[in-house]
Amino acid sequence: MRKSIATVCLSGSLTEKLTAAARAGFDGVEIFENDLLASPLSPEEIRARAADLGLTIDLYQPMRDVEAVPEEVFVRNLRRAARKFDVVRRLGADTLLVCSNVSPQAVDDDALAAGQLGRLADLAEEFGIRVAYEALAWGRHVSTYDHAWRIVEQAGHPALGVCLDSFHILSRGSEPKDLEGIAAIPGEKIFFLQLADAPLMAMDVFQWSRHYRCFPGQGGLDVTSLVRHVVNAGYRGPLSLEVFNDVFRQADAGSTAVDALRSLIALEESAGISTLPAPVVPSGIAFAELATADPQPVTELLARLGFRRTGRHTGKPVELWEQGEARILLNHGTGTRSEGTALTAIGLETPDPGAAAHRAESLLAPVLPRRHSGHDVPLDAVAAPDGTELFFCATRRPGHADWISDFTATVHPRQPPSRDGAITGIDHVALTQPWHHFDEAVLFHRTVLGLRPHESVDLADPYGLFRSRALSDDSGAFRLVLNLAPSPAAEVRTRAQHIALATDDIVKAARRIRAAGAELLKIPANYYEDLDAKYAFAPGELDTYRELGILYDRDESGGEFRHCYTATVGRVFFEIVQRTGDYGGYGAANAPVRLAAQRR
Amino acid sequence: MRKSIATVCLSGSLTEKLTAAARAGFDGVEIFENDLLASPLSPEEIRARAADLGLTIDLYQPMRDVEAVPEEVFVRNLRRAARKFDVVRRLGADTLLVCSNVSPQAVDDDALAAGQLGRLADLAEEFGIRVAYEALAWGRHVSTYDHAWRIVEQAGHPALGVCLDSFHILSRGSEPKDLEGIAAIPGEKIFFLQLADAPLMAMDVFQWSRHYRCFPGQGGLDVTSLVRHVVNAGYRGPLSLEVFNDVFRQADAGSTAVDALRSLIALEESAGISTLPAPVVPSGIAFAELATADPQPVTELLARLGFRRTGRHTGKPVELWEQGEARILLNHGTGTRSEGTALTAIGLETPDPGAAAHRAESLLAPVLPRRHSGHDVPLDAVAAPDGTELFFCATRRPGHADWISDFTATVHPRQPPSRDGAITGIDHVALTQPWHHFDEAVLFHRTVLGLRPHESVDLADPYGLFRSRALSDDSGAFRLVLNLAPSPAAEVRTRAQHIALATDDIVKAARRIRAAGAELLKIPANYYEDLDAKYAFAPGELDTYRELGILYDRDESGGEFRHCYTATVGRVFFEIVQRTGDYGGYGAANAPVRLAAQRR
Repeated sequence: MRKSIATVCLSGSLTEKLTAAARAGFDGVEIFENDLLASPLSPEEIRARAADLGLTIDLYQPMRDVEAVPEEVFVRNLRRAARKFDVVRRLGADTLLVCSNVSPQAVDDDALAAGQLGRLADLAEEFGIRVAYEALAWGRHVSTYDHAWRIVEQAGHPALGVCLDSFHILSRGSEPKDLEGIAAIPGEKIFFLQLADAPLMAMDVFQWSRHYRCFPGQGGLDVTSLVRHVVNAGYRGPLSLEVFNDVFRQADAGSTAVDALRSLIALEESAGISTLPAPVVPSGIAFAELATADPQPVTELLARLGFRRTGRHTGKPVELWEQGEARILLNHGTGTRSEGTALTAIGLETPDPGAAAHRAESLLAPVLPRRHSGHDVPLDAVAAPDGTELFFCATRRPGHADWISDFTATVHPRQPPSRDGAITGIDHVALTQPWHHFDEAVLFHRTVLGLRPHESVDLADPYGLFRSRALSDDSGAFRLVLNLAPSPAAEVRTRAQHIALATDDIVKAARRIRAAGAELLKIPANYYEDLDAKYAFAPGELDTYRELGILYDRDESGGEFRHCYTATVGRVFFEIVQRTGDYGGYGAANAPVRLAAQRR
Repeated sequence: MRKSIATVCLSGSLTEKLTAAARAGFDGVEIFENDLLASPLSPEEIRARAADLGLTIDLYQPMRDVEAVPEEVFVRNLRRAARKFDVVRRLGADTLLVCSNVSPQAVDDDALAAGQLGRLADLAEEFGIRVAYEALAWGRHVSTYDHAWRIVEQAGHPALGVCLDSFHILSRGSEPKDLEGIAAIPGEKIFFLQLADAPLMAMDVFQWSRHYRCFPGQGGLDVTSLVRHVVNAGYRGPLSLEVFNDVFRQADAGSTAVDALRSLIALEESAGISTLPAPVVPSGIAFAELATADPQPVTELLARLGFRRTGRHTGKPVELWEQGEARILLNHGTGTRSEGTALTAIGLETPDPGAAAHRAESLLAPVLPRRHSGHDVPLDAVAAPDGTELFFCATRRPGHADWISDFTATVHPRQPPSRDGAITGIDHVALTQPWHHFDEAVLFHRTVLGLRPHESVDLADPYGLFRSRALSDDSGAFRLVLNLAPSPAAEVRTRAQHIALATDDIVKAARRIRAAGAELLKIPANYYEDLDAKYAFAPGELDTYRELGILYDRDESGGEFRHCYTATVGRVFFEIVQRTGDYGGYGAANAPVRLAAQRR
């Protein structure tokens, strides 16, 4: 279906917004009135600019407080409407959105509303315009789509139809049966469909609508079902996003527009309107790549963690470090002094790398130029919203190109027995996201990689609350954690990234690492007294944890999580984790203590 | 009364928090458990640090999910409690807060709750500790203070009392009569009183409590009535703040602590517990002072606006510019190149400058050293939270020292007739506030200057929503507008300040200013077409506004507001405003168009 976006979704001037929408690949836009009023371009110039960019103008909005009013008020409203119809005509659009009346002047009289909307439609016809009537969730007398439709049906005017808005319909807590009324509306009388999602929040619906809407798939409303119902009713107009969001208002319009279009592409798939290449869920982390301008501190740390340098890239200044199934690429060829050592790429162990890349591309993931130099194995790669490069890999798998073959072995990967506390693999990777792109990142990883997002949790840092959200495959073989700093200003000092390394015996691992000369993060004694109050431990167990800085958590199933931390090098630190039972979390309960310790 | 603050109110490490609380002048603190767990100091060391700073530790909190549970669970809880009582004892505190149980294990059985809380109190007594039992608004079975008191009364144990929390009590939408039950609680059984306010929001009470609490007087809860009831019941413990707030978590602990203590001082006054010097409400703006490292652009603009340089300071590089009752001081002796021209001080025309300063000092306003040089008239001045200097002045008033006498007249202040569009005075000053101190600034100006805050409004800038809140005296003779940029990151490019100049004829004023060579902000034609759709104007009226860039607003009483804008010099621009009728606003409806125009 055609895809549109309301200009209010994007940051900037009207022409910035149009440019961003066109670049992302939208077909059309809704012009929000304030954007027109604030623009130095005339309606004709806006029309020409949009046409030049390949965009249609699908709707002008909103006109408020028109119908179901005393006659003398309605006469004034008709005068106002005539000016607006003229603007719509000059924009080259064919539809004006009229919201249900919220003013105290409105009367609870459907016949009056239908009569006046009919007269409005008469006037609209003179301008060659249609009127799409929308029930606001907080409309004074008309607040549901079926009520709006009854009034439109009663008016029986060819230039009058309804506009359905997913937020206004679903924010009222609609049951599945509440959507059944949509089938009663002839498709050609649904003049427009506006789409927005929102996180489930118990709050005033007006404030919720004005500040917290998000793109479909980023919140908790069942936008997919709504779209299915509307398409089944015969609607053939555009899928159009109308999202009021305080964060999007500040974010770069270009990336918001891409995020927006991705949400519609995924929505079409989930609603069964279109098909995409099926998701290829990663089965593990093939490697994590660190870029550094000064490899000394991080190589020293890797060695102390028990990694060995097992290979050198044949054509680039990249080293391969291995321990068990944990592989770190150390790239000396990129990375800057000011940034420090940073995690720049992740290799995703993928059953079918080509198909995974194809899926990603269909969801607008920026495809990266294949890195070729000498005899490189070509790797499919895309950029995540935070700029992290995601490589789709098959490691040492017959029948697939093996990225490791680009490396000349320097020593044989030797694996100390896991009973000695060796690292067995990468448990997860945690990335701090740029402030304005957290929801975008969750949507990206969910739709592109087919991962399941877990609940968002707050983590109390001494200088503000972090938001944290994990994504994983169903088996927990692939885990990724996205963190969000408390504010854009806080971001610079808190853009930490970390690699969590798995072990089967964290006590031996911690002793081994300390014996090798690495310091582990010191955890306060008070923390261990609290653990002792909460849980019963074996004699001496807590003393060991206190000595080594090991944190402990237990979930309701009795699954356990033990973890400890290295110092930070550049932006990167390592966590060592041991999971037992069905523990599926990340030790969030310990985060305040860990974050405070890292601040010291 | 003694004044305390919970460590969770402040940003930073535990020792940063203690230092900030002591510096601000608090008597004691509540230690929040997470702050203790994350601290490298032992409880004994924390006790010593607090004592060294002159702070008592009044409460340790919270202990959760203790009471009304099956016996085997309670036995485990007693073991946990013993460890916590030991921590409380080592901290030198005498009270542990126990919150009503929220876990699914809790049973709805008051007798069981009372029995188990009694056994808990038995154990507490062995440690010399008291237990204060608090009803959380979302407690599973106990969610009101009177229910908590019934259980405590039933237990009848000397070491068991209640903790009253203003948020938990008032967030449930309490009617005045709901507070009457407080009188039934003997004062000595109210072991603790926790205070927090919150903006009135229709949202989930748990999220509201955890993210949006604020200091008393910054929100919409009637904390004053609650305090009156509790003091009347005989409570003599500390007034203690417990505020969970996402912004305070990020803000500088030092200024948050001062803001916090100011809120309690004002609360004691409003509750009739103490008296302060009465507020002396400003009756106008005596002057606005601009600091600049390059006076050329701003002097040129002032001249074009019709100001004349009427005096030079006798001892400092400061010029006085006048037009009507509008006075601008131009200070060449301060101001930096990077900052550009900035508004650094406001003279408040005050009936009794000495009394005003005395009031400000009693509310912790930082008193500024009197500016003396040569024969300066000493002026009382304090710093507002954003650093703006506020001078309490009497201008040309017999019986008061006149600040103008420090200036040598260069020309006589000549006032063009107001029918020619002269500036008659300063209508208001608008200041963009540092991001973390918006609520603090509103509380400061309300309590220190006795101003009335108006509703907060959102203003849509192309790159994010601004928050804006005006304060004024009851007559509207003194008006101040505080703005807040969308995020700390946005602040740098949006720290604009402006001075609104009053005129009786904005059309003549605008023509005069343009004729003098100043450009006025260009407003798009689309805006005027919308005005034309909304209102009926006299023939030619709108054309004039369009030509001159004059914006128009009308309120429900028919009062009108016409305004236009100069270019920005450094951080400062001027607005010219004409009010008619009872218009009391600031043209918020026009802000999106104005802000977009300023961005171009």
